Amino acid sequence: MTASLAWNRYGKSLVRVMKVTRTGPRHNLRELSVNIGLEGNFTAAHTRGDNSAVLPTDTMKNTVYALARTDPVSSIESFARLLARHFVNTVPHVALARVEITETQWQRIETDATPHNHTFQRLGPETPACTVESERGSDRVRSGLRGLVILKSAQSAFSGFMRDKFTTLKETDDRIMGTSVTAAWPVSPTADFNAARHAVRQALISTFAAHQSLSVQQTLFAMGEAALRATTLIDEITLSLPNKHCLLVDLAPFGLTNPNEIFLPIDEPHGLIEATIRRN
Amino acid sequence: MTASLAWNRYGKSLVRVMKVTRTGPRHNLRELSVNIGLEGNFTAAHTRGDNSAVLPTDTMKNTVYALARTDPVSSIESFARLLARHFVNTVPHVALARVEITETQWQRIETDATPHNHTFQRLGPETPACTVESERGSDRVRSGLRGLVILKSAQSAFSGFMRDKFTTLKETDDRIMGTSVTAAWPVSPTADFNAARHAVRQALISTFAAHQSLSVQQTLFAMGEAALRATTLIDEITLSLPNKHCLLVDLAPFGLTNPNEIFLPIDEPHGLIEATIRRN
Amino acid sequence: MTASLAWNRYGKSLVRVMKVTRTGPRHNLRELSVNIGLEGNFTAAHTRGDNSAVLPTDTMKNTVYALARTDPVSSIESFARLLARHFVNTVPHVALARVEITETQWQRIETDATPHNHTFQRLGPETPACTVESERGSDRVRSGLRGLVILKSAQSAFSGFMRDKFTTLKETDDRIMGTSVTAAWPVSPTADFNAARHAVRQALISTFAAHQSLSVQQTLFAMGEAALRATTLIDEITLSLPNKHCLLVDLAPFGLTNPNEIFLPIDEPHGLIEATIRRN
Amino acid sequence: MTASLAWNRYGKSLVRVMKVTRTGPRHNLRELSVNIGLEGNFTAAHTRGDNSAVLPTDTMKNTVYALARTDPVSSIESFARLLARHFVNTVPHVALARVEITETQWQRIETDATPHNHTFQRLGPETPACTVESERGSDRVRSGLRGLVILKSAQSAFSGFMRDKFTTLKETDDRIMGTSVTAAWPVSPTADFNAARHAVRQALISTFAAHQSLSVQQTLFAMGEAALRATTLIDEITLSLPNKHCLLVDLAPFGLTNPNEIFLPIDEPHGLIEATIRRN
Repeated sequence: MTASLAWNRYGKSLVRVMKVTRTGPRHNLRELSVNIGLEGNFTAAHTRGDNSAVLPTDTMKNTVYALARTDPVSSIESFARLLARHFVNTVPHVALARVEITETQWQRIETDATPHNHTFQRLGPETPACTVESERGSDRVRSGLRGLVILKSAQSAFSGFMRDKFTTLKETDDRIMGTSVTAAWPVSPTADFNAARHAVRQALISTFAAHQSLSVQQTLFAMGEAALRATTLIDEITLSLPNKHCLLVDLAPFGLTNPNEIFLPIDEPHGLIEATIRRN
Repeated sequence: MTASLAWNRYGKSLVRVMKVTRTGPRHNLRELSVNIGLEGNFTAAHTRGDNSAVLPTDTMKNTVYALARTDPVSSIESFARLLARHFVNTVPHVALARVEITETQWQRIETDATPHNHTFQRLGPETPACTVESERGSDRVRSGLRGLVILKSAQSAFSGFMRDKFTTLKETDDRIMGTSVTAAWPVSPTADFNAARHAVRQALISTFAAHQSLSVQQTLFAMGEAALRATTLIDEITLSLPNKHCLLVDLAPFGLTNPNEIFLPIDEPHGLIEATIRRN
Repeated sequence: MTASLAWNRYGKSLVRVMKVTRTGPRHNLRELSVNIGLEGNFTAAHTRGDNSAVLPTDTMKNTVYALARTDPVSSIESFARLLARHFVNTVPHVALARVEITETQWQRIETDATPHNHTFQRLGPETPACTVESERGSDRVRSGLRGLVILKSAQSAFSGFMRDKFTTLKETDDRIMGTSVTAAWPVSPTADFNAARHAVRQALISTFAAHQSLSVQQTLFAMGEAALRATTLIDEITLSLPNKHCLLVDLAPFGLTNPNEIFLPIDEPHGLIEATIRRN
Repeated sequence: MTASLAWNRYGKSLVRVMKVTRTGPRHNLRELSVNIGLEGNFTAAHTRGDNSAVLPTDTMKNTVYALARTDPVSSIESFARLLARHFVNTVPHVALARVEITETQWQRIETDATPHNHTFQRLGPETPACTVESERGSDRVRSGLRGLVILKSAQSAFSGFMRDKFTTLKETDDRIMGTSVTAAWPVSPTADFNAARHAVRQALISTFAAHQSLSVQQTLFAMGEAALRATTLIDEITLSLPNKHCLLVDLAPFGLTNPNEIFLPIDEPHGLIEATIRRN
């Protein structure tokens, strides 16, 4: 044998499941997408084709369906933890089970200003997300959200930056700042996950709106700091803010001014500002 | 010459533009994506490489920017019509100008229950859409919407259908019905486009919610009929309703019942039900 | 009743199927995606929820699987026609059956310069495509291809074009011309579809390469004319050529020349040139 | 201040560039997409909005263009390293510069069995990829490839696996095995990157084809081992193999057998098998 197995993981990705919960005529809806990965001593499978320790990924899929039936799925984190612990407890060779869940959100519609019992509209593109890692005896939970696309058309500047021979960017004290927020925060396995997410989300959005921004970096830090102030359930948050550029269009060739009114939104390239903010 | 030009069209697609309109500190935001196509006698360009009658598609892009500056863009239809008529009037060989616009919607966020002056959140995935075709002396306007994803978890059945030797589908009197609505309706070039879309949209959603569905076809017809009842601004509507299947998962192998609670949502294949409903 | 059904179609979209055909140890592979749409008198389903004339779209999916087993699938057109005729003959109320197929291409890999018996690599992004429409007594076949992405870095010019007040484009006698070819051509229901596609495809590519282009329009016409010259199996072809722009980057601010060497490829906006070329 | 900056990175993503290199009439083409990320002491930007140490991400984009002009770009790794070292050397506060490049491949077309001088066809979906991390005094290079979609229709089995109460999968000694290979391997900053990738790629494909597979895990290990045998330029490789399932369709309800001939390819869910193989 010229080589050996230095690391391995296997599992099932993109297991979709929708759960309809009924309280009389009133229904609730959760649509989840689940990724499962198991690490451990699966060397015999790799080197000898001995599958006796390998729980099929098809079984992992079935497990998602079955446990979605018996668990209330009160949060994506509690369901992810249930799944992760299940695999740690069921599969002998597993050292670590990793379960990621993202949620597709459905909003109850209103007809005649009354919430409807069983009709829903897809929200988007924001998705709650979490990752749970279970080892024998310990669980780590990371909550988060992705795809929260927000934009402010005032109170964003970028000037006084470093310049080198390749710098052509003009300074500005009034630009559009748009982003798609990805946030993730470690949280205790017994915390109220939904309460934490709600508090973080509100803090992120209202700080983005209120901030007199000198840079995406400064706004990111203010958002993170606000999230930590908003709830004692978390002590750290990682934010990833792409700078979704809206370029001011030059209308001068057409004899027109452009007082920050007409912009060209582009998807690529984009800036990407990331940081972890931690409570002192 | 062995061949001749039987039909031709040229233009610019995916011209994105964002317009920020200010009323004091309060901003409004519209993000549009514009497709432009011109038809007419451009034979010389094709057969001889004579470009003298060809307005560059780059110019069409510039025209979108410039007219977005000078026009209030009070509706996507009025702006599409302005553009279409501009090209008919400007380019001598144009017989027909076709302009399609889809709008990416931004919703004003609220902080402390107050609408914010200049911060917005991306709605999705629903997009208003329109197509305007201008010829010399006449315009045709078609309004619409796309990507309105709605789902009902009760009051949907499908039974009594035709069967042949390849039919294995079970009859059901209780299934999930989910779809992504595409709708389009002809409308007078001088109509209140925004009022028509608002009325149609409300009728589609509330009928979908209230309908005791025997099939997607029946619900589609009821939705179309409701739209025609909701506004006299339109006399015809075409609806395209993919049947985004949620399959009931068989939990019996795991010793569990599944009383319409756990579903597998799939994207492919999907049913597709389309019809045009016209006022009598 | 305030409204009536002016037009309707229903069916199944994105029915995927892979067929493995064996000649001894040598396998052949076809992966198809099928869209089926039926038109006819389905008024009772829409207006009364009477499904007795409605063959479920689930059955259409099953039909694809079953007929893929019994038919050799020697071409996508022959299989599409088999399906279309099946539905016309089976479902009493059908006036027209429309079947679209696109093929995901797999190329046999070589090991030690020998074609392997049963291992394949995905080609892409080009996909053969066809549409067959069957009515009682007549079939219409349209063959085609999509996603043939080609680019030439010389012998493409664009100058002498019409200018107006919004024109800023510079004339050029040396630019990159890149496109993603979509082509479609009517063909007899009994023609050799594969031979026609092969001839058309070769003519399109070699003409694109050899053409001294004065515009996309001129190259499109030359490509279409060459396709008609290449095979007597077709008399008409429609080409759709997006102009996938590669913008010359201005390096002068950095003290560098750019003799057509460094380009920025963009996806949006793009030009779109379309025409139908017909044999005289 | 309630919080502090625990980690940060900023940069530009999806910087696209195409370079045309000419040797007389014969052109060569490279299309790259570049992601740049800088880590270091940028605390003042985050906490005080002091941008004096912040090189704009717009400048990073310009740097890609300018260095693409002056560098021959003989490999994606050498160009990524040039960029990474440039930012480490230019920006005072940078501790680590990370540059990722993926390449969109273009293949020279042939006309009349002769390679054409300046016309190319897009290959796909496989993309060469690399990541270079530079700190002051040291560089780490990781080469790789993504999106190599391969499939074998024989010599793949999966049986003898662990079973629990949620296991319903049937054992099989003849299934389709399809995957989209992602591979990455550390390599010396002065190695012949192109030679290493070529050797690895050939070993991966031919081993996948020849292997009598008892599981994806076993085939993955064999592929990794073969790559290490194929070149002494690498000592470790990480492979990520999604198991792109092709489900055998049950045709029994239609009175038909299905001797591994008709399959349903699905995208979700999919298995995911990952491992790092290291030279002993």
